[in-house]
Amino acid sequence: MSTTAPGGIRLSLREVEDLTFRALAGSGVGEVQNRAVTASVVDAEAEGVHSHGLARLPTYCEHARVGKIDGRATPTLSRPAPGLVRVDAADGFAHPAIDLGLPVLAGTARRQGIAALAVTNSYNCGVVGYHVRRIAAEGLLALGFVNAPASMAPVGGTVPVFGTNPLAFAVPRPGADPLVLDQSSSVVAKSEIVLHRQRGEPIPLGWALDRDGRPTTDPAAALDGGTMVPAGGHKGAGLALMVEILAAWVTGACLSMDASSFADNTGGPPRTGQFFIAVAPSPLTGEAAGPRLARLLGAIAEQPGARLPGDRRAAARLRTAAEGITVPAALLARIEGYAKA
Amino acid sequence: MSTTAPGGIRLSLREVEDLTFRALAGSGVGEVQNRAVTASVVDAEAEGVHSHGLARLPTYCEHARVGKIDGRATPTLSRPAPGLVRVDAADGFAHPAIDLGLPVLAGTARRQGIAALAVTNSYNCGVVGYHVRRIAAEGLLALGFVNAPASMAPVGGTVPVFGTNPLAFAVPRPGADPLVLDQSSSVVAKSEIVLHRQRGEPIPLGWALDRDGRPTTDPAAALDGGTMVPAGGHKGAGLALMVEILAAWVTGACLSMDASSFADNTGGPPRTGQFFIAVAPSPLTGEAAGPRLARLLGAIAEQPGARLPGDRRAAARLRTAAEGITVPAALLARIEGYAKA
Repeated sequence: MSTTAPGGIRLSLREVEDLTFRALAGSGVGEVQNRAVTASVVDAEAEGVHSHGLARLPTYCEHARVGKIDGRATPTLSRPAPGLVRVDAADGFAHPAIDLGLPVLAGTARRQGIAALAVTNSYNCGVVGYHVRRIAAEGLLALGFVNAPASMAPVGGTVPVFGTNPLAFAVPRPGADPLVLDQSSSVVAKSEIVLHRQRGEPIPLGWALDRDGRPTTDPAAALDGGTMVPAGGHKGAGLALMVEILAAWVTGACLSMDASSFADNTGGPPRTGQFFIAVAPSPLTGEAAGPRLARLLGAIAEQPGARLPGDRRAAARLRTAAEGITVPAALLARIEGYAKA
Repeated sequence: MSTTAPGGIRLSLREVEDLTFRALAGSGVGEVQNRAVTASVVDAEAEGVHSHGLARLPTYCEHARVGKIDGRATPTLSRPAPGLVRVDAADGFAHPAIDLGLPVLAGTARRQGIAALAVTNSYNCGVVGYHVRRIAAEGLLALGFVNAPASMAPVGGTVPVFGTNPLAFAVPRPGADPLVLDQSSSVVAKSEIVLHRQRGEPIPLGWALDRDGRPTTDPAAALDGGTMVPAGGHKGAGLALMVEILAAWVTGACLSMDASSFADNTGGPPRTGQFFIAVAPSPLTGEAAGPRLARLLGAIAEQPGARLPGDRRAAARLRTAAEGITVPAALLARIEGYAKA
């Protein structure tokens, strides 16, 4: 049962699931599509990634209502080559498209040793790490590349060409959850800046530039014609270009600079893309693969002050399973509004 | 003909090739192996990447002489799965191993849509971009991951776990050379710091830490027990881990923390690894793929102050083809010594 807590209302993950499903159903999203998206929203809240959890849900509902997302789209799968799987999301959510392609990707990678899944004409897929983790849960190494509406300029320029274009990687660990790396090409994910604006808080210098290319601490200046700063300068911009080519150009999706916003209600479906590569490690790793991986990861984890990627999310998973999450009362009321509509 | 020039002796690229081949032959490197390595040294000089050109050659010669490289090793190829190619470099140079695997990788990727090449028990492969560019010249998208002896600690730690672990990406461009991205996981490649030490110049703050984890401008402090700084903090360290898992763990090569140095004569063969993924884009990209790519790249190149990855190397290629390169007299004399020995 939900209870009042400091900062909002406490919900169990089961309640998050129920709430999310009802809000999406109330926005016309079909049942199969809804289950796929709801699972990812619950998972984001479970991992403490609030920006892709309930905080994002009103936008999903709005976009399903105004047709930026076709909430009842049926994705279609094709096999353009023995190692390639292609799924056209048909302007729907990315989640049901990835759900359709993932088992085919996994089966192909196990047979061939490597395979790729190209998802096109899809909407925001939420946390990329969620999808590569599911591939790794099939015993496969996974790489994920995702484009997004342009918000990042090349270094030295001021016109956005790239989305924050995240890259994710996951590797199965014997006897443990997969290790998941999930990072945007920008210093921070754009959703972090949106969250700061919602809270009325300034952003640290170095996260974003204003529309004239000057560093800013104002989240509104960053979001209103400004650009995101690439992580590590040219290196982050280089990664963004690599992600763009794989996730948008290869998949035949909209380039980031052509995609409509994930934030407002205008411009029709964004038609972005996702590209995943799965590799079966066992034909290559040779003997003692498990202990070798454990030794590598241990050499990081054992250093005081260092941590493995995903450690915070894993800790959040334990905490939220026991304690649930806290959602601001106003957000909860807004979501309930979509559920009842 | 070589001529005296400011800063050293001017050599044509043909003279660089002849000199390199003779120096490696004088160090006991077999002809096939020698041709593979020489081509990469010439290419590095052609692109202005001196750190992996003639400046690196004395180390190659030393290592072939002391047995850190088996200059006559014959790599062996196996096919552990329909989409996977594995080459054991048998403690030899990486170059002949990659040369053996590359056509098989390319043929497999064209048939299957995607394929991977895992090279194990190999030495430094030089510029990773050189290898992905050759894959892209076959009409394929290419990703390359390479590990190296540990020189970078996880963020917050002081014990090196990763090499500077570069990642490279190449995409074929119709009517132009492939676009090549080639970047280390560290702020700069370690060879840049070696070059500064050779020249007696300080390094900028932010490139490296000393053995106590403090920022340093002294290249010797960086190289003598210090560590490289990952690009973009946690993000660069995350990429280094991803590269480590693909290039070392998947291939069955030495982890970076177990590999002997690429710089000194001790410790036997480093037995590092390289991992390449090749994707055939045409089954996926759909119509107007060429113009779409040109539009994306144009949106970067047309912004004043911005540039495409690889632009400097392409400009160097034109310049060195016409003018040759300049090699310091002392380095030239040293290399001639290996050639005559």
